[in-house]
Amino acid sequence: MFRYFTAGESHGPSLTGIVEGTPAGLELSEGFIEQHLVRRQKGYGRGGRMAFEKDKAIIQSGVRFGKTTGAPVAFSMVNRAFEKDDSNWPKVMAKEGERGDVEKITLPRPGHADLVGVQKYDFDDIRPVIERSSARETAMRVACCSVARAFLKELGIEIGGHVIQIGSIGYSDWDDVRAIADPLAENGSESIYKEADKSDVRCLNSDLSHQMREEIKHRRKEGTSLGGIYEIVVTGLPAGLGSYVHWDRKIDGQIAQAIVSTQAMKGVEIGLGFEAARSRGHEVHDEIVYKNHFSRRTNRAGGIEGGMTTGMPVIIRGAMKPIPTMIKPLKTADLETKKEQDTRYERSDVCALPRAVVVAESVIAPVLANAILEKFGGDSMNEIRTRFQNRTS
Amino acid sequence: MFRYFTAGESHGPSLTGIVEGTPAGLELSEGFIEQHLVRRQKGYGRGGRMAFEKDKAIIQSGVRFGKTTGAPVAFSMVNRAFEKDDSNWPKVMAKEGERGDVEKITLPRPGHADLVGVQKYDFDDIRPVIERSSARETAMRVACCSVARAFLKELGIEIGGHVIQIGSIGYSDWDDVRAIADPLAENGSESIYKEADKSDVRCLNSDLSHQMREEIKHRRKEGTSLGGIYEIVVTGLPAGLGSYVHWDRKIDGQIAQAIVSTQAMKGVEIGLGFEAARSRGHEVHDEIVYKNHFSRRTNRAGGIEGGMTTGMPVIIRGAMKPIPTMIKPLKTADLETKKEQDTRYERSDVCALPRAVVVAESVIAPVLANAILEKFGGDSMNEIRTRFQNRTS
Amino acid sequence: MFRYFTAGESHGPSLTGIVEGTPAGLELSEGFIEQHLVRRQKGYGRGGRMAFEKDKAIIQSGVRFGKTTGAPVAFSMVNRAFEKDDSNWPKVMAKEGERGDVEKITLPRPGHADLVGVQKYDFDDIRPVIERSSARETAMRVACCSVARAFLKELGIEIGGHVIQIGSIGYSDWDDVRAIADPLAENGSESIYKEADKSDVRCLNSDLSHQMREEIKHRRKEGTSLGGIYEIVVTGLPAGLGSYVHWDRKIDGQIAQAIVSTQAMKGVEIGLGFEAARSRGHEVHDEIVYKNHFSRRTNRAGGIEGGMTTGMPVIIRGAMKPIPTMIKPLKTADLETKKEQDTRYERSDVCALPRAVVVAESVIAPVLANAILEKFGGDSMNEIRTRFQNRTS
Amino acid sequence: MFRYFTAGESHGPSLTGIVEGTPAGLELSEGFIEQHLVRRQKGYGRGGRMAFEKDKAIIQSGVRFGKTTGAPVAFSMVNRAFEKDDSNWPKVMAKEGERGDVEKITLPRPGHADLVGVQKYDFDDIRPVIERSSARETAMRVACCSVARAFLKELGIEIGGHVIQIGSIGYSDWDDVRAIADPLAENGSESIYKEADKSDVRCLNSDLSHQMREEIKHRRKEGTSLGGIYEIVVTGLPAGLGSYVHWDRKIDGQIAQAIVSTQAMKGVEIGLGFEAARSRGHEVHDEIVYKNHFSRRTNRAGGIEGGMTTGMPVIIRGAMKPIPTMIKPLKTADLETKKEQDTRYERSDVCALPRAVVVAESVIAPVLANAILEKFGGDSMNEIRTRFQNRTS
Repeated sequence: MFRYFTAGESHGPSLTGIVEGTPAGLELSEGFIEQHLVRRQKGYGRGGRMAFEKDKAIIQSGVRFGKTTGAPVAFSMVNRAFEKDDSNWPKVMAKEGERGDVEKITLPRPGHADLVGVQKYDFDDIRPVIERSSARETAMRVACCSVARAFLKELGIEIGGHVIQIGSIGYSDWDDVRAIADPLAENGSESIYKEADKSDVRCLNSDLSHQMREEIKHRRKEGTSLGGIYEIVVTGLPAGLGSYVHWDRKIDGQIAQAIVSTQAMKGVEIGLGFEAARSRGHEVHDEIVYKNHFSRRTNRAGGIEGGMTTGMPVIIRGAMKPIPTMIKPLKTADLETKKEQDTRYERSDVCALPRAVVVAESVIAPVLANAILEKFGGDSMNEIRTRFQNRTS
Repeated sequence: MFRYFTAGESHGPSLTGIVEGTPAGLELSEGFIEQHLVRRQKGYGRGGRMAFEKDKAIIQSGVRFGKTTGAPVAFSMVNRAFEKDDSNWPKVMAKEGERGDVEKITLPRPGHADLVGVQKYDFDDIRPVIERSSARETAMRVACCSVARAFLKELGIEIGGHVIQIGSIGYSDWDDVRAIADPLAENGSESIYKEADKSDVRCLNSDLSHQMREEIKHRRKEGTSLGGIYEIVVTGLPAGLGSYVHWDRKIDGQIAQAIVSTQAMKGVEIGLGFEAARSRGHEVHDEIVYKNHFSRRTNRAGGIEGGMTTGMPVIIRGAMKPIPTMIKPLKTADLETKKEQDTRYERSDVCALPRAVVVAESVIAPVLANAILEKFGGDSMNEIRTRFQNRTS
Repeated sequence: MFRYFTAGESHGPSLTGIVEGTPAGLELSEGFIEQHLVRRQKGYGRGGRMAFEKDKAIIQSGVRFGKTTGAPVAFSMVNRAFEKDDSNWPKVMAKEGERGDVEKITLPRPGHADLVGVQKYDFDDIRPVIERSSARETAMRVACCSVARAFLKELGIEIGGHVIQIGSIGYSDWDDVRAIADPLAENGSESIYKEADKSDVRCLNSDLSHQMREEIKHRRKEGTSLGGIYEIVVTGLPAGLGSYVHWDRKIDGQIAQAIVSTQAMKGVEIGLGFEAARSRGHEVHDEIVYKNHFSRRTNRAGGIEGGMTTGMPVIIRGAMKPIPTMIKPLKTADLETKKEQDTRYERSDVCALPRAVVVAESVIAPVLANAILEKFGGDSMNEIRTRFQNRTS
Repeated sequence: MFRYFTAGESHGPSLTGIVEGTPAGLELSEGFIEQHLVRRQKGYGRGGRMAFEKDKAIIQSGVRFGKTTGAPVAFSMVNRAFEKDDSNWPKVMAKEGERGDVEKITLPRPGHADLVGVQKYDFDDIRPVIERSSARETAMRVACCSVARAFLKELGIEIGGHVIQIGSIGYSDWDDVRAIADPLAENGSESIYKEADKSDVRCLNSDLSHQMREEIKHRRKEGTSLGGIYEIVVTGLPAGLGSYVHWDRKIDGQIAQAIVSTQAMKGVEIGLGFEAARSRGHEVHDEIVYKNHFSRRTNRAGGIEGGMTTGMPVIIRGAMKPIPTMIKPLKTADLETKKEQDTRYERSDVCALPRAVVVAESVIAPVLANAILEKFGGDSMNEIRTRFQNRTS
């Protein structure tokens, strides 16, 4: 079973990750990981950080001659900013010694973990909360999850995501999205992300891409921020992953946790999702057909019925809130003085959707990989591949 | 830590449940459990089943003189239908012996676990899939989760749910719902469910209730079915449950799994949810204020920031698909003949929302109770209550 | 993955068990379970309880026409004593109502969970501790674990146990045990338990059996009690279950937990165990040979190297302490008065070893079954059996 | 809850570890970790490796100004050998590229994970098995577990171990050990390890120390190896950690897993352990006394009854097999040629007991720390310490 921990602070010396439970014999390279790390860093609407910080996950263990050994795969990723000459991060983030004249941060930002983090962990300084709750952590999460993604890919299971909504701009309905995404997914859903990557807002529709960029530009001027919705499509999954027999084995529940456990996510839906709730049964359920094998005429269920994959593409959507750090201030109150104050001006991105897609593609990979391992078992890729190819459904 | 298993088939002799991890000294009675079981059974739009089947969870262990002992609490619940004179369930569901002339079910119903269940478990008969994937299981789930609910209640944490959408009928926006639900929640959110229970569609707004009933009536005549959206509000939670430090400790992710792991759920959102994705930052984030203690001016985050409770009410919404069993048939294909066929006519409910609310109120209780146990620890209610009352945030 | 909960008190109305994670298509009957329940009840040195209490686990779910369906298997087991006319258990163990004149037990018995149980759960009465910590619980544990045992058996994996020491009476060394047990295990280790069952102390050597009975008789007269050591042998396991890569995946560690988590166990060893610690390397390590396949010349490792099964029989030994309830009193102190007192006279068994063997055989079954599922995966017995038979090591 | 992963190969560039679940506000320094790392490296009977390899765990995250932040603590530890000029490890252990002329290891060593590891993971080279199954991994395990150990220490819970048997040399019985260890433990059991550390075989008795050294010297000349038995004593634990209500919550079972999941361990016992099995009840059970608080006259149970701590010192013993790498060869068979061969001469330690003690002290720390967290809950040391000090039992 794939299990992973990430560690590291936003401005600490490095991020660390360990992936335990990888089968042996899986092809894995730093290059494969890097492509998704680079994708995660790109996207319209970024602030200035990107230029100086190109992430690279260094494999420290678990891989020999380009293949996994079954032993834990460890990654380290240097935070380039940490050692910059003019940076005082080594002092601010010092692991040993006294605080000295390092300033405390006492102004909690609405929409961030700041206030509650301080209350929970009994801090008088918001700094450690910022450092760990930051989306910087997702860099290592993408690295770790990419191991599971490589595993899925070797079995022909592909994951591809794209942005379908930024602020008020988006597709008008489910069918509109299907019309553009489904043909791409026919030969594997990596085509979806590859096509989407051509747009710096990761939207497949070029008109919408243009509008989204305009919206971002507009809201940046206003000093506010934007959220949005992404869609992730997974192709190549066999039927019968997950189970209806016990609640915690339902694969849609597991996917929902993975998505909502990602920074800034406020909602998730499978297939038609909330639209299904507003529709009549005959507009929702997918008729069953038999042509050489059983299939569905439509896929409004998003590839999951009864907590199990149906063999149709799995379609997941996530709702991301606007970035809470904004130029135009919000009201807040200081931890020490308790006085009402404006949040401080901070340079920030306006919209994180284009990058959040890559994180979402990543975090569902271990969920799906574990469902494969539960169904097919095995310790080496040879063993697993053979069983996967000999499957009957 | 509260852990539970449910067992049992829809038409087997009984349902069984075990709850492990209950602190000692918690007041618990069959009457407390029963009130939620009864609520789960009630709701406009039910088919004929309700009349003959009033659920009662019999406590088999773990409770003495009205209080838990810390030992596992076991429940048994008779399926009244099983032993009816004219029923052949004992024969159809026989645990031993040969199948004999018991008919196989070979026509999978779209929208149910039927087809995939058979593929997964290598069956030639859909019967065992129907029996376990049915929402009948939620009766025992409600019983099991009610133990956690009693625990929360003893600490002043209340859970209340109501229906906000059935098919196309629902509140126009977030503020409309807040205007009616928030005043009720002020003295604890059980007021919400108690008020909602006065409507047989569990909607707080009587005009909408009327329209929902009409919609159900209308769609029943059409032979189709309806889904909808519920909202669950939790009051009395302290700040700081969950954590931002590791993905699987984020309480919103855990809640999302619990909701989506319930039969027929296709989506979940926290606070503004998908609406947040379509809004600008300043319309979403809750400003921080200090009056004796830190609080938020608004609660559009739905009581969760950075994967932790903020101390404001937790607001969760779930999207349920329309019931897949419908009078007007859908196309499907027979497992044996592979021939296209209409689904069979089956008596069924049209809309399960009013009852699904009670299930949702229940399934989040163990998630929250475990977060409390993680924060406060303890083996007995005396120990836990004291710490809870002495908390600082 | 096999997971199970047991519930129930020693003198409550019934015991309950749920086994979640069983593959579909496994043959399972109440008769199969019963044979091990009956074995668990038999053994020289029992007190009077046995006569009136023949256990039967009633399957409540998860089995149809003699085969599992993949759904949770629930068991209920009536406590016959509960409803006896002259028993006041329904009053003493009442789940509702006030305590009334039901006496509190305030004299903790050394060697039992009594004192700590009361301290932990904040009780003023030892009764609930006695009820749940009692070995009565193992009746349901045997039932639940028997599902995993049936699974293993269908793959040709057999478990058999025997007593090798009672008090001071036992085999002189490892080789003595091997000489009698190994030939029996050659055709599957169920032969071991079947042969051992012919002795009422479950010892394979008839001379030792006689001495053990004499020892028990002698110590009963003295008013004291006895413990001992059992050995469990598992045959038919493939090589490579468990793993060396992460500590919690080592199968010897998992087995050790299962054994020591059983009532009254104070030690466990694999293969030569503590004797290995006192020996030189050349007396311990098993040379590797190749004859058609790789094997070991000896099996002093007890079938486990590097946290993995070697393909040789797994040999586990457990050390059980003497029964703490004894006729000749020990000193203790009353919970209320704090005064020193003698423990009360209680009718009790003198030695539980013969029955503990059956419990031990049972509790390791889920550990091994889960290792099989991890290696071979699968949802139905057909799927699993095929892969198991096609394995290469 | 403390959770940790270790990663890294014996001759890879570095070891990595992540500890997730640490409360905030715990004092932690690299110096604290280092003292146990250094202890782990010392001990009579080592081969030549020690000189060039002094371990240092570098904290990469989770600690600021000398205190934990609640975020995951990551460690990296350089393998000094890896980059030595004359070493070809970077080539042998290359993560990328082809194998080239790097030799395969095809001669499995009896007693190691070699043969089964290759079978399990489908390797044609034993190298990756050696690299991960090696006791080198315990260096990072000690580092990770030391975080839990610092946590316990801050609450006054101390862990101390010593060697009681090496090969045939050891204390004659339980009382002999108690006579020397218990007085030391009276002021906290760190006194035990501090005293034991004065002996290079970590034995408290100087006569035995001398004999053990002689035994090691003797067996080295013979070309064989030795195992032995250690004892770990934990003082300062409150009563009531663990539970009798469900098998996997029994703390003795959890401890047993932790011990046996350590390299080369073949057995574990609590308190009298196997000696209890050979004794009569009156020689085993600890009478209860009341003097201001409840206590036991003796502690033959080793501080655990009914799966719970009693408040008396916890006493654990582990049996380690002799080191399998030995100068005098054993027979084995080549993976490729299948031909019988002698194992190759390898420089190796003769006895690892003195170092294994430190590993054992370490691995039980997370088990105990988690039991404390379960009982007392909490996110910061202030919160936990207050509750711990206010406890009633």
